[in-house]
Amino acid sequence: MNNNKVNASIITIGDELLIGQTIDTNSAWMGQQLNKLGIWVKRRVAVGDVYDDIWKALDEESQHSDLILLTGGLGPTADDITKPLLCKYFGGQLVTNADALENVKLIFSKYLNRPLLQVNINQAEVPSVCTVLLNKQGTAPGMWFERNGKYFVSLPGVPNEMKGLMIDYVLPKLPTLFTLPAVVHRTLLTAGIGESFLAEKIKDFESALPTYIKLAYLPNYGMVRLRLTGIGDSLYEVTTEVEKLFAELQVQVQDVMVINDDVTMQEAIGKMLLQKQKTVSTAESCTGGYVAHLITSIAGSSAYFNGSVVSYLNEVKAAMLGVKEETLQRFGAVSEATVLEMASGVKAAMKTDYSIAISGIMGPDGGTDDKPVGTVWIAVAGNSGVAAKKFNFSFDRKRNIELTATYAFNFLREVMLQNDY
Amino acid sequence: MNNNKVNASIITIGDELLIGQTIDTNSAWMGQQLNKLGIWVKRRVAVGDVYDDIWKALDEESQHSDLILLTGGLGPTADDITKPLLCKYFGGQLVTNADALENVKLIFSKYLNRPLLQVNINQAEVPSVCTVLLNKQGTAPGMWFERNGKYFVSLPGVPNEMKGLMIDYVLPKLPTLFTLPAVVHRTLLTAGIGESFLAEKIKDFESALPTYIKLAYLPNYGMVRLRLTGIGDSLYEVTTEVEKLFAELQVQVQDVMVINDDVTMQEAIGKMLLQKQKTVSTAESCTGGYVAHLITSIAGSSAYFNGSVVSYLNEVKAAMLGVKEETLQRFGAVSEATVLEMASGVKAAMKTDYSIAISGIMGPDGGTDDKPVGTVWIAVAGNSGVAAKKFNFSFDRKRNIELTATYAFNFLREVMLQNDY
Repeated sequence: MNNNKVNASIITIGDELLIGQTIDTNSAWMGQQLNKLGIWVKRRVAVGDVYDDIWKALDEESQHSDLILLTGGLGPTADDITKPLLCKYFGGQLVTNADALENVKLIFSKYLNRPLLQVNINQAEVPSVCTVLLNKQGTAPGMWFERNGKYFVSLPGVPNEMKGLMIDYVLPKLPTLFTLPAVVHRTLLTAGIGESFLAEKIKDFESALPTYIKLAYLPNYGMVRLRLTGIGDSLYEVTTEVEKLFAELQVQVQDVMVINDDVTMQEAIGKMLLQKQKTVSTAESCTGGYVAHLITSIAGSSAYFNGSVVSYLNEVKAAMLGVKEETLQRFGAVSEATVLEMASGVKAAMKTDYSIAISGIMGPDGGTDDKPVGTVWIAVAGNSGVAAKKFNFSFDRKRNIELTATYAFNFLREVMLQNDY
Repeated sequence: MNNNKVNASIITIGDELLIGQTIDTNSAWMGQQLNKLGIWVKRRVAVGDVYDDIWKALDEESQHSDLILLTGGLGPTADDITKPLLCKYFGGQLVTNADALENVKLIFSKYLNRPLLQVNINQAEVPSVCTVLLNKQGTAPGMWFERNGKYFVSLPGVPNEMKGLMIDYVLPKLPTLFTLPAVVHRTLLTAGIGESFLAEKIKDFESALPTYIKLAYLPNYGMVRLRLTGIGDSLYEVTTEVEKLFAELQVQVQDVMVINDDVTMQEAIGKMLLQKQKTVSTAESCTGGYVAHLITSIAGSSAYFNGSVVSYLNEVKAAMLGVKEETLQRFGAVSEATVLEMASGVKAAMKTDYSIAISGIMGPDGGTDDKPVGTVWIAVAGNSGVAAKKFNFSFDRKRNIELTATYAFNFLREVMLQNDY
């Protein structure tokens, strides 16, 4: 075990976070990056645009951690709290930094094509004691401070600007400042099994793990990720042990494992299609294009995705997918017969090897005694047939849509694994 | 001004938050709900599954706040830290609660249809000094504690379970415990103008605001929300003043305002279509169904949305949307001529009053000198014509897709406002 554990705190500044107008995605990304370097994020703290609260957070977190990252409070309409506060906290004067001002002008000429306002020019003002980190994607510079052997970095709250500064300056600098342990993660993705049943299945494996290797369960919409994390002094030794245990874990969960990698379900499906050189299309009613959106959120998906018909109305199911009027009348839009015809229809129209078809009732309205909210039929067509399954979800609209997408992808995966049918 | 400000802290527990495997959406929702009641979330703190860190967070936050909400650390595979810790922190013994056990059995019979495991039965164990809050959507009960005039509530981390317990027990209880101020928010949505230019436009309005009314800028993907918040003793007086100022603000931003309500762009578009009793369809290439997904994420959208063709391949644009082969060959898929034909084609095929068509290059690959990554053509068709606009976005794939959706909706809105053309 490495005893030189380096702790970090992330402080996010902004009322919008505390009153819930903005979801904090920055901290998650920062946590991932620091973790990869072997730095442990001990605490994340969000405070409002309140002078005393920011000051107190700096005091407290510098007691908890060796590295304190701040985001937010630097935008052109920010209430002018954070920069003067940092100036007072670390000493020095607020001065206009020539490089930062050049950068503000550059950003305006490159992206914005608008005149510079005084509030924009003010963004080049920084405390004289900081090291300026130039922001290539925005007008607010990053600022680096040191005090009593602790490091403080103030970054803008706009995600791509924060990420750019982390990648360009902060992450490369950290290993030069600290002696960091070796950290090795291996993650696999399972689907169709609940967290507690998965835990029961691998409890012997888990209880036999050495103390320096941890297993984490990360559930998300019908999927559970399993992550092994090893921490130690020797990268070689930690890697060897984690790899050995990861191979063992894969055998134990092979019947529910989607992929032995830390990727999304749609990335796993994309990899399979690419490897098999097959194509897919979707016909979506209740998911309204969400499955197509997930597939196309992956760069390069045009190699295996031809297109989708979102057939919200029955007339569209008939006209564009060739679902028979008789089928719709006799069985209804949410039925096995309809999704089977939708899957065959879209596969033919889009000329793909596989297709997914979905029809259901996502809620909150539209349910009946016969077909309550959450009833979903999913069909998958391959080159030698088409099959359908019925699901019953019992959550809100958003979650029902998410779960449907997961189960649809997993159904397609099963069909592809059976090498068609 | 009300001086009895009630402060809350939210403590989230779980390594998965600190290493960034999970994005914390719970805190945002809790912040929104507390804020509506007039409770100020002073701090949000995330700590890992570490005994001392959780203990210290409880100590610290009970000094900062009157109400401390905890989420996480209660799942069946949690490391058995949080409940024993709460037991020690507040005193008492860990005992099986009969009602909670009944609830575990009920949840299993209702949703899971699987045998109960010991880890599930253990979830009914709670510290003897707490008040149990029954979880209607999961097996982990909520727990309510009081000490030294401060209130502590421990809730599961699964979002819908946490929300259910907040709605059923916590939120109704809080106004009986505290004297809360009147808080009034009014929010409007603008599009197509940057934060700093909006601030410049309304700087006189902003500087003339009384001290008890604040203006916040909430930027998000081509949109900026403006929120007025008034806090005071008299609900009548605060409401009157906020409404008066909100009316004034609407006049000042009328040329860029989408809607005078705190709703999403797609909700605003949905309201307009419903009011005009018009329908819409989409033909999407580079957005891959994302615009259709946003429209159909709104319950009741089947009243105005007929469907979409996601035409990722040129063959699909030709076969299903009637785009001429000649057009595709001569101008390419990302061109004014192509999106105009896509818009007309989908409008005819889906039999709608309006349609949106989108074709572009989202990146990271696929750009050329002529048409770099970020080039997007958007067309909107109405009953008397079709028009197209070209956009150039310069961000990553995800953000380019988000921005395209915003600008597509705003284009449709402009066309609808012009009462067709």
